[in-house]
Amino acid sequence: MHVLITGAAGMVGRKLTARLVADGRLGERPVERLTLADVVLPPRPEGYAGVVDVVAADLAEPGVVERLIEARPDVVFHLAAVVSGQAEADLDLGYRVNLDGTRALLDAIRTAHVEDGYHPRVVFTSSIAVYGAPLPNPIGEDLHQAPLTSYGTQKAIGELLLADWTRRGFLDGVGIRLPTICIRPGAPNQAASSFFSSILREPLAGREAVLPVPETVRHWHASPRSAVAFLVRAATLDTALVGPRRTLSMPGLSATVGEQIEALRRVAGERAVHLIRREPDPVIMGIVQTWAEALDASRAERLGFVAETSFDEIIRVHVEDELGGVLP
Amino acid sequence: MHVLITGAAGMVGRKLTARLVADGRLGERPVERLTLADVVLPPRPEGYAGVVDVVAADLAEPGVVERLIEARPDVVFHLAAVVSGQAEADLDLGYRVNLDGTRALLDAIRTAHVEDGYHPRVVFTSSIAVYGAPLPNPIGEDLHQAPLTSYGTQKAIGELLLADWTRRGFLDGVGIRLPTICIRPGAPNQAASSFFSSILREPLAGREAVLPVPETVRHWHASPRSAVAFLVRAATLDTALVGPRRTLSMPGLSATVGEQIEALRRVAGERAVHLIRREPDPVIMGIVQTWAEALDASRAERLGFVAETSFDEIIRVHVEDELGGVLP
Ligand SMILES: NC(=O)c1ccc[n+]([C@@H]2O[C@H](COP(=O)([O-])OP(=O)(O)OC[C@H]3O[C@@H](n4cnc5c(N)ncnc54)[C@H](O)[C@@H]3O)[C@@H](O)[C@H]2O)c1
Ligand SMILES: NC(=O)c1ccc[n+]([C@@H]2O[C@H](COP(=O)([O-])OP(=O)(O)OC[C@H]3O[C@@H](n4cnc5c(N)ncnc54)[C@H](O)[C@@H]3O)[C@@H](O)[C@H]2O)c1
Repeated sequence: MHVLITGAAGMVGRKLTARLVADGRLGERPVERLTLADVVLPPRPEGYAGVVDVVAADLAEPGVVERLIEARPDVVFHLAAVVSGQAEADLDLGYRVNLDGTRALLDAIRTAHVEDGYHPRVVFTSSIAVYGAPLPNPIGEDLHQAPLTSYGTQKAIGELLLADWTRRGFLDGVGIRLPTICIRPGAPNQAASSFFSSILREPLAGREAVLPVPETVRHWHASPRSAVAFLVRAATLDTALVGPRRTLSMPGLSATVGEQIEALRRVAGERAVHLIRREPDPVIMGIVQTWAEALDASRAERLGFVAETSFDEIIRVHVEDELGGVLP
Repeated sequence: MHVLITGAAGMVGRKLTARLVADGRLGERPVERLTLADVVLPPRPEGYAGVVDVVAADLAEPGVVERLIEARPDVVFHLAAVVSGQAEADLDLGYRVNLDGTRALLDAIRTAHVEDGYHPRVVFTSSIAVYGAPLPNPIGEDLHQAPLTSYGTQKAIGELLLADWTRRGFLDGVGIRLPTICIRPGAPNQAASSFFSSILREPLAGREAVLPVPETVRHWHASPRSAVAFLVRAATLDTALVGPRRTLSMPGLSATVGEQIEALRRVAGERAVHLIRREPDPVIMGIVQTWAEALDASRAERLGFVAETSFDEIIRVHVEDELGGVLP
């Protein structure tokens, strides 16, 4: 089968590519061809026997998505996005990529469907940012989308379009509302949620990290490995079981910052914990306190989506996948 | 003040125009200027002392909305829309008008805001079609938007954009989810809900009407007069009381078809009721049974929105406003 990944140069896109290359298959079917697209040239995966096209192009530019689906990929993972902080800072860019880019992709698939019956599985990564405070805890899947950011607005619109295109029979869409991905590897990014990862990742690497919020802050997490497992599950599940509500809240771990730090202490000792510097930031606190603390993900759980159940496990995933299995 | 109405040639648009002309004011302020825009040339109101511009133009055409807001109307009633049946039958048209047209209007206002601080009240007419079965009864205002039509999808997206533009400070938006407007005057239209009006309107005029569903079907109604009162209230209320959730479910009357017919009997007698011919239509039934039966509109009620409380009243409004106060 042929798999297209948009946003393939991103954090989740690279990990998904690595998983598909390692497995050589998606569900029961061998992956013979990969199209990896991103506005930044995605790295060419090593050790992959199939055909790979790497494409550096902006999804929102005319003609780009048409070209990407020309060879009719069986599965489309639509990960390309301008993330929360940047979509808030640059309104036009966020709407251009997250709304217009998504719509262009869906429209191109519709045109192809009308031409030759093309009907791919499309997996769309949405976010808990579609919800807005005041929030119940846990958030039920029938809670209204009342986002308080432009990013959340754009993701909510993406979910609505995906459902309408699926209902119309142009494609077979599954949206997944990812928890905050923790521990996010690499450098801190523009997301206000960045510290949830850096307070673990940096001390695990012997570096200082800044904690801008109190330890009582509770949030909803899953590891990058789980995120990739969610994507694979979304691409392979029997969508007859999903029904018309095509976006699923993904399972996660609801934990406080204090619980994250306790897990760090257990896994890496007191020395690591001492590298966390408390620097309260009212702006970040203001943003974070409007976020989800936990979601009811029982629908997804019944469909076979699984996440970590402790922060020790999330830290161990990071040590295995990013640090070669050893603490420095 | 200067008031712009898009969709001014439509049923609600014409009634709103008539009300503004009759009142001569909107809230406390005199209405000195009206801009009436529609893809169909809106009728020029009679007996209005102020300035009127009637504009026949397609909102989704480049440049049209910019021209409409050039004189910086203080209040924009955005009613222009392709309604449910047509948006379902013509996917491109629905998205073009209901999504692209709405977005063009919001974008033009944003550009004007950036230029000179323009910050109009924008009243957007949404619909209970943003909700999708299975539905609780009543529907709480925090129920997720899970539309089962393209029209509902487009209205849900309009609500999201309105909220984001309001949050960003470009405009002062209020969305109102109108109940089905009953009794809709004039000829039956393309909406699947058309029969809710025609089973009363046609017999009241001595004509036959077709009832395609059982009498047990329950739905959510308000008169055209109430719809106009909602619009006026939305244009004049203190939005500081609304908060970030800018769309309000409007009050209405939850009634079965049987209750509608009982009211018709009380107001117009057995002869009128005999003009209703039962012709079950499984397609219409299939659509209608996924619709809302009642909404919790307590937020709007607290903000001063009021609807009818009996179908006798709804019929009397029709007799007064459409039949000159007398039964034929
Ligand atoms: N990481 C999280 O915590 C999280 C949580 C919820 C949802 N998500 C969503 O999951 C997806 C992947 O997230 P991630 O963490 O890998 O983000 P990321 O920022 O690492 O990757 C997104 C990629 O999209 C690419 N991109 C941006 N604009 C583009 C354009 N116009 N055309 C083509 N590519 C473009 C970027 O270059 C980047 O490589 C995104 O859709 C994101 O919104 C992530
Ligand atoms: N009537 C109802 O029961 C009901 C219920 C819920 C919501 N609404 C909404 O209320 C609003 C008014 O409803 P209505 O019953 O008067 O509908 P209507 O169909 O009578 O009026 C809509 C008007 O929009 C105009 N229009 C369509 N495309 C246009 C375009 N591209 N540019 C400019 N104008 C265009 C049409 O010509 C029409 O005059 C609509 O937004 C509708 O979706 C109505």
